[in-house]
Amino acid sequence: MKRRLLLVSNSTLHGSGYLQHCQQNVAEFFGRDVKRVLFVPYALHDRDAYTKTARDAFRTLGYEVDGIHEAPDPVEAVRRAEAIFIGGGNTFRLLKSLYDNKLVSEIRRRVLEDGAPYMGSSAGSNVATVSINTTNDMPIVYPPSFAAIGLVPFNINPHYLDADPNSRHMGETREQRITQYHEEPDTPCVLGLREGSMLLVEGNKATLLGSTRARLFTRGKPSVEFDPGCDLSFLLTQ
Amino acid sequence: MKRRLLLVSNSTLHGSGYLQHCQQNVAEFFGRDVKRVLFVPYALHDRDAYTKTARDAFRTLGYEVDGIHEAPDPVEAVRRAEAIFIGGGNTFRLLKSLYDNKLVSEIRRRVLEDGAPYMGSSAGSNVATVSINTTNDMPIVYPPSFAAIGLVPFNINPHYLDADPNSRHMGETREQRITQYHEEPDTPCVLGLREGSMLLVEGNKATLLGSTRARLFTRGKPSVEFDPGCDLSFLLTQ
Repeated sequence: MKRRLLLVSNSTLHGSGYLQHCQQNVAEFFGRDVKRVLFVPYALHDRDAYTKTARDAFRTLGYEVDGIHEAPDPVEAVRRAEAIFIGGGNTFRLLKSLYDNKLVSEIRRRVLEDGAPYMGSSAGSNVATVSINTTNDMPIVYPPSFAAIGLVPFNINPHYLDADPNSRHMGETREQRITQYHEEPDTPCVLGLREGSMLLVEGNKATLLGSTRARLFTRGKPSVEFDPGCDLSFLLTQ
Repeated sequence: MKRRLLLVSNSTLHGSGYLQHCQQNVAEFFGRDVKRVLFVPYALHDRDAYTKTARDAFRTLGYEVDGIHEAPDPVEAVRRAEAIFIGGGNTFRLLKSLYDNKLVSEIRRRVLEDGAPYMGSSAGSNVATVSINTTNDMPIVYPPSFAAIGLVPFNINPHYLDADPNSRHMGETREQRITQYHEEPDTPCVLGLREGSMLLVEGNKATLLGSTRARLFTRGKPSVEFDPGCDLSFLLTQ
């Protein structure tokens, strides 16, 4: 399988600029063969402003960015794309727009069959997985399905957050929410990617990168912590 | 309109027991005419345990509780109910179960036409509104619609949380999430009920109760704070 994915927890780490914390990973991921990256800004309302932000960040790494909303035919834009980057924002808005524009199966085909490199951050990492069932976002619009692009056979929880023992807030912790997901039948593993972490997938090899650990939740089993550098390839054969 | 609603932000306040912070409001709301309350435990996985929790809390106030899942025909149980209480948990699971059991329109009819008192807490308050678009919960299951029971013409955000200025977490604040909702067209007001607050609706009169303030978000306008005791009846005629 030609699959190449870089699934980032968050685009902006506290105290640094857009994609700054992972810019070396991004440059290594796209390498020197890729010249232009197709950016999907659907997760934010102002697509032009969002594309400018991505364009500025990628230019400093030597890549040109095309906003998919600038293309007359978004499906054709995916067909021609050298590489794809889906940015974060609201996951429901993003997935609905991907369905509305008939892009879900086309992106899957381009990545899994043609080997087009796929980078996602936050919501863009959510939609790369089995489903958006483990997003943190508010369901501001109703997508036709929670099933996502399905580039990997597990789910991700981006911006994974440990419970604050001093909190007096009684809303569910992130762990409790993921546990509720696993109370439902036939639910896949959930990789909780803390801010600062990311997953690199190359074919059937998966490696945790970045500066923070990740927590893996498996239905009916205790959760497990993984350090940066860990081989998580077993997740691809679940 | 006979409508009588008690929409509570949260069932449990930090440091106190289940429904303890609002037990006087609950007793005044159901009064002495109601003897039995129909409890809907669909938002949590273990419906028996959840019903026991509600039963114990309501018994101390002098009410018997029937779990709707114990009834052979849930629609018939709603038709016969003196009063209804929908508890919190996962809003997606709750709304899906309400649709699966064909209860959405029946509860609406019983409350708006027959005047059956309706109490909701957290997810149970979300489903009383226009839609669940402003829940905080993880979308662990896919309901057939985000449209909810529609007992009021606005939405609620329960467990409303102010941004923590010291946080290094880069996920969206609650205010940012609600702002994203209002970037979408034709979206109703959102009443952010902080933990400890609740809304009492009697016919066309709405009053903020409890110990904390609420924040009202209106599309295209600045948000506004309201103190406990405020008359929010204008929300019912939007």
